[in-house]
Amino acid sequence: MSERNIRIEPIDRRAVEDQDVEIVERKGIGHPDSICDGIAEAVAGALAREYLDRVGEVLHFNTDETQLVAGEAAPAFGGGEVVDPIYLLIVGRATKHYEGQTIPAETIALKAARAYLESEIPHLTYGEDIVVDVKLGEGSGDLQEVFGEDEVSVPMANDTSFGVGHAPLSETEQIVLEAEARLNGEFADENPYLGTDVKLMGKREGDEIDVTVAAAMIDEHIADIDAYAEAVESVREFVEDVASEHTDRSVDVHVNTADDYEQGSIYLTVTGTSAEQGDDGSVGRGNRANGLITPNRSMSMEATSGKNPVNHIGKIYNLLSTEIAEQVVDEVDGIRDLRVRLLSQIGRPIDEPHVADIHIVTDDGVELGDVEDDVEAIVDDELANVTDITRRVIDGELSTF
Amino acid sequence: MSERNIRIEPIDRRAVEDQDVEIVERKGIGHPDSICDGIAEAVAGALAREYLDRVGEVLHFNTDETQLVAGEAAPAFGGGEVVDPIYLLIVGRATKHYEGQTIPAETIALKAARAYLESEIPHLTYGEDIVVDVKLGEGSGDLQEVFGEDEVSVPMANDTSFGVGHAPLSETEQIVLEAEARLNGEFADENPYLGTDVKLMGKREGDEIDVTVAAAMIDEHIADIDAYAEAVESVREFVEDVASEHTDRSVDVHVNTADDYEQGSIYLTVTGTSAEQGDDGSVGRGNRANGLITPNRSMSMEATSGKNPVNHIGKIYNLLSTEIAEQVVDEVDGIRDLRVRLLSQIGRPIDEPHVADIHIVTDDGVELGDVEDDVEAIVDDELANVTDITRRVIDGELSTF
Amino acid sequence: MSERNIRIEPIDRRAVEDQDVEIVERKGIGHPDSICDGIAEAVAGALAREYLDRVGEVLHFNTDETQLVAGEAAPAFGGGEVVDPIYLLIVGRATKHYEGQTIPAETIALKAARAYLESEIPHLTYGEDIVVDVKLGEGSGDLQEVFGEDEVSVPMANDTSFGVGHAPLSETEQIVLEAEARLNGEFADENPYLGTDVKLMGKREGDEIDVTVAAAMIDEHIADIDAYAEAVESVREFVEDVASEHTDRSVDVHVNTADDYEQGSIYLTVTGTSAEQGDDGSVGRGNRANGLITPNRSMSMEATSGKNPVNHIGKIYNLLSTEIAEQVVDEVDGIRDLRVRLLSQIGRPIDEPHVADIHIVTDDGVELGDVEDDVEAIVDDELANVTDITRRVIDGELSTF
Amino acid sequence: MSERNIRIEPIDRRAVEDQDVEIVERKGIGHPDSICDGIAEAVAGALAREYLDRVGEVLHFNTDETQLVAGEAAPAFGGGEVVDPIYLLIVGRATKHYEGQTIPAETIALKAARAYLESEIPHLTYGEDIVVDVKLGEGSGDLQEVFGEDEVSVPMANDTSFGVGHAPLSETEQIVLEAEARLNGEFADENPYLGTDVKLMGKREGDEIDVTVAAAMIDEHIADIDAYAEAVESVREFVEDVASEHTDRSVDVHVNTADDYEQGSIYLTVTGTSAEQGDDGSVGRGNRANGLITPNRSMSMEATSGKNPVNHIGKIYNLLSTEIAEQVVDEVDGIRDLRVRLLSQIGRPIDEPHVADIHIVTDDGVELGDVEDDVEAIVDDELANVTDITRRVIDGELSTF
Repeated sequence: MSERNIRIEPIDRRAVEDQDVEIVERKGIGHPDSICDGIAEAVAGALAREYLDRVGEVLHFNTDETQLVAGEAAPAFGGGEVVDPIYLLIVGRATKHYEGQTIPAETIALKAARAYLESEIPHLTYGEDIVVDVKLGEGSGDLQEVFGEDEVSVPMANDTSFGVGHAPLSETEQIVLEAEARLNGEFADENPYLGTDVKLMGKREGDEIDVTVAAAMIDEHIADIDAYAEAVESVREFVEDVASEHTDRSVDVHVNTADDYEQGSIYLTVTGTSAEQGDDGSVGRGNRANGLITPNRSMSMEATSGKNPVNHIGKIYNLLSTEIAEQVVDEVDGIRDLRVRLLSQIGRPIDEPHVADIHIVTDDGVELGDVEDDVEAIVDDELANVTDITRRVIDGELSTF
Repeated sequence: MSERNIRIEPIDRRAVEDQDVEIVERKGIGHPDSICDGIAEAVAGALAREYLDRVGEVLHFNTDETQLVAGEAAPAFGGGEVVDPIYLLIVGRATKHYEGQTIPAETIALKAARAYLESEIPHLTYGEDIVVDVKLGEGSGDLQEVFGEDEVSVPMANDTSFGVGHAPLSETEQIVLEAEARLNGEFADENPYLGTDVKLMGKREGDEIDVTVAAAMIDEHIADIDAYAEAVESVREFVEDVASEHTDRSVDVHVNTADDYEQGSIYLTVTGTSAEQGDDGSVGRGNRANGLITPNRSMSMEATSGKNPVNHIGKIYNLLSTEIAEQVVDEVDGIRDLRVRLLSQIGRPIDEPHVADIHIVTDDGVELGDVEDDVEAIVDDELANVTDITRRVIDGELSTF
Repeated sequence: MSERNIRIEPIDRRAVEDQDVEIVERKGIGHPDSICDGIAEAVAGALAREYLDRVGEVLHFNTDETQLVAGEAAPAFGGGEVVDPIYLLIVGRATKHYEGQTIPAETIALKAARAYLESEIPHLTYGEDIVVDVKLGEGSGDLQEVFGEDEVSVPMANDTSFGVGHAPLSETEQIVLEAEARLNGEFADENPYLGTDVKLMGKREGDEIDVTVAAAMIDEHIADIDAYAEAVESVREFVEDVASEHTDRSVDVHVNTADDYEQGSIYLTVTGTSAEQGDDGSVGRGNRANGLITPNRSMSMEATSGKNPVNHIGKIYNLLSTEIAEQVVDEVDGIRDLRVRLLSQIGRPIDEPHVADIHIVTDDGVELGDVEDDVEAIVDDELANVTDITRRVIDGELSTF
Repeated sequence: MSERNIRIEPIDRRAVEDQDVEIVERKGIGHPDSICDGIAEAVAGALAREYLDRVGEVLHFNTDETQLVAGEAAPAFGGGEVVDPIYLLIVGRATKHYEGQTIPAETIALKAARAYLESEIPHLTYGEDIVVDVKLGEGSGDLQEVFGEDEVSVPMANDTSFGVGHAPLSETEQIVLEAEARLNGEFADENPYLGTDVKLMGKREGDEIDVTVAAAMIDEHIADIDAYAEAVESVREFVEDVASEHTDRSVDVHVNTADDYEQGSIYLTVTGTSAEQGDDGSVGRGNRANGLITPNRSMSMEATSGKNPVNHIGKIYNLLSTEIAEQVVDEVDGIRDLRVRLLSQIGRPIDEPHVADIHIVTDDGVELGDVEDDVEAIVDDELANVTDITRRVIDGELSTF
């Protein structure tokens, strides 16, 4: 075994699945906070790749402060219009000059934001429905760690920071996470009236699960109030179907419950996101690194999106602890709930955390001792390969929100 | 007893004070995220008071999205200068027209931001070291609840939201919270070299407490490197003294550990905040409603600062649950750790939460049954007076970060 | 004859063609000031047309304040890149609410700006090389004149304003105007290395004409310094050829005279405009309504681009006086130089100017009396049809810079 | 005599004083365009002085592009309020790094803007009624001329540029210029209701002079409509008195002619400037370098305010030609009208213009030959001391608008 300070203990609470009340939330990809997370992370990935291409290593940057100021829209059955554009400001630091080279950090950021929006939030016409501006200060050149094409060093922790991951997902978590993914995937493909701003709140009390969905409908594809009502019902049935694949508990799905048809107050949008009308957003205010907001579990406050994947310990440890948790549950049987916490130690390499705390609830009939060694081996191995996280973030393979 | 759904149960974990590892963080008042929280909340309070003054009730607004873009500074012993100003954008919604009156929401916001900065972050010269801009969209007039001078109604919950509070504070929490308050209070009064941007991280392992302080020093009051070293040592001793008032455990205090005197790399600033050089900030990314970041305890992701105190359930429930927790611990003996969670129910008045979960660890020799009735009475009473929270927020009596 | 106050007199100076020294300047379409003029006018036209489409008449607006903040670029033979984007802010007023309708003035402005840039300054990638933002205040609804699809009224002058026009163009003026047009037309079509930012200064002393051209070259199409030198020479020869079509005087053409090949200081750009690197721009700072800057002739200080063509007297009178001058010279023989000045009278319809001053230099052998009646008839007729100017501006048929 | 190419000739038109129709305009110090001119020039002066202080010579900068976006206000008798603040963006270039020193150009700009506004437009509360932002790009270090404390070299012209000056002022010009100065001086001192945004238009036809004044009144000092009417009348009488000191012609003064008391449409403001409500502004759109807009005289299109006084030929020549004209008329008798034009020659020192054209209308009975030598001597001397202009601009002694 390694020298790493890995502690494996029973968790000091019941498995989330066994708690009486559970709350789970996910802000879909078109939610104003998620738009900010998505752009911040897209910009970060683009910068990292460009640095590698141009100078062979990732230079200092941090772009985790995108701010979205909502626009104003006038939706209408059959197609309304955006009245005042959304304003989005990409904020952060980036190295612009390095060994005689000039790196066009702001242009890279704008290109990345545009590509991201055009791919993920396609109903927002870039430069018309949304104005994207950028203010990237000069990063300090002496902060970078070596993370190059040819050589990779494990960076030193320069901060006391903390990451946390969980596995397996509870049924409610699975439902919320997958319903959003599939609504924004197969469902939207077939039903173009569904906007990207889908917010799901799952609440379980005992064996009763309520899923509340707020789904922005796109006016161009909704002819009238009847079509709207049908659209709402289709979403409801779809989420119900998704839910039934993940649980035998009773599930109630509610869609756009704040609607008031009498008053004509419905969730109709021009662009499929509430950012068009009154809902501002910013990075780190929505989903945690595993895609969910889970008050029943420990969460890190740190924004993961937009941070530099080479040397930001909070980002690396949040992603790594989630990876570890999933890996352990994949490979080791008998685990009902698992929490991984990684705490950095200033001045030591990040593959040697101050402590790696693994808290476990085992299945009935399984003792901690039965799984301990396997778990520790996985944790040790994942820590040894911490720079894989960085590599995968740079390649855009890991989601951060 | 009331009809409210109050559940009192044992907590499903050890008291935080009894856990092996504890981490506590506080970003001081001059930290870029705290500056944003402070301004957002100052603006919200000013708007609420102006609405009451002008139209007799609080109209719809939400100003929880302040964004700070760091400046650039050139600190120097004896006094350097800000090179590029900090840019701060106040973002949100406010009702600007109501029954024929025009309410100057943006001017109110700027005045409040200025007053706040001049009072709390006095080394930042408003309009020179920091440019404050504002973009407040028009709020929708029909969203407001009745919260007037003469009449107050308990608002209906329009969202499923969640608040959480804890008491009593652990020793480590007390140390971190009070050390920051007193550093920015009596210590700074006597030692003008200390900036407002003081960040404290407390880490307890068993009975060993480490407190790491990052304290921005103000160059005007630091003549040379020796004076700097003395200043650092004075901060260290002061925090050590504060700590000793709250614990008998061994405490190690570390100040500005990233300094490298050889390289001249020290934490010297012109204005006392890292916002002057490279550290961006935004609302809701820092301290929770009780002033701390506590990974060992449940936390709400919701930004509290800047939200409308009349109808934003997340804000009200976070503040109220903290109030309840403190009230219970003040009045009821025998409680070692207490967590209050309030969960709203859409469409019901907010004084009737879906559930008020009270989780308790009792002192040795105390049974839950011994305290249950007293606790419930307090919770019931506090819920009945939920609108007091709103009133006190409007009057600026409750801190939100 | 009409009642209009038309005065026809000899001009109190020599014809410009006969003066000893003449200076003429034109900022080409890609010059930062011209980009602002072009966008301001494109936005104005789009708003006017949308108002007509939506409410049947042109509502109040004024968009004559576009500001361009230069970017930063790193040109290189074979293709460099924009480092920091250009920032362009469209500023003005527009009616956004009218009789229950919402008019998306800001979105209209952005669409118009984008279409203009993509058509006229195609090397600037919208949203990447240039960030276009917009701040349109609410125009006051009660300022509008009736200018509708069905009914047109001649507006009243609400200001003392002044317009001036000249004809015919001198040889130097013709050379400068046409050389720019053809450089940005046929020449650029065949020689993609030529940018849109072409500035020409013509100076005539007696019978010697010097034409100085500053021509931004596009790096993508310039392989090396030799190619650059060839490109410069091609521009020189082309302008020489254009000039020879307009004069028998001796003409010297100088292109990019500030170049210093030794020092590698040449006029190479990524996007074909100096806006990419250090040259800011704004409306009304460049060419007058006839496309030229002519210190030898009276000029109006008023910005023409972006003004409302229905009720802005300065705009209408500048365009109309130019039209009148050209019309007279087309139709009446014997005129060597002509200046038309229109002065408004507050409170009277604009087709009845306070005075229409026509100053004429006749050809040798022609008396003023020989042409007076013909000139007056044309002036009278043009004034009678003043609303044609408005119509043609709205239809985008008249250039304003 | 010197080698300078000075030509003295009769002017090819009548003296302006003898022309039939004359128009003269001045935008007062609080007009939105003038606010921009004033700030641009204040920033330029501050930068030049700081450069001299810090590095001993003036480095490259250019700040002639300030843009003002109007606010929104709700004036009311006795005191209204600004609803949305004015936004003012200082745009330009400045050298920020020079020989290892960092020059805080943006902070210098903000301080200068603040000091200027607080001194000249005191009713605008900085940072509340007006948000001042700044975007100064990095100037190119290699463009500077030597203009130091100890050594001054005459810069080379790097552009073909043109300056023009006139003297003496006509009666109408004197009236307009002095009336604005004294309204904003002694009159406003005694009558605090008068705002700084006073615009005067003088129109002379033969011997009848009309002066139209648009005077922003400050609501705080105007109790009701009667007080307003009295204020208007006081302004009218004051301007009449000023006028009578400059002419024996008949003078009619009209103040706030667009008022409609019935409709309550009057020129009442909170801050004394129309920038608070709908009137945008920018540099170089208002008064020429001599403080007036004079369609009867040649004018330069170039913005003078904000330009670098060391090497911007247009600025220097516009100020110098005005100086020369005034100097000649002061010292030489018998001159009725005088125009000075200076044309630069690329690559030659600016004290050797390509041509200095002096056009003169002599008084009756005076021949050009009688004054020629005296005039030439003055012109020659002024050109020899061209750097005095730069020095005086830096010291803030010359007005540019």
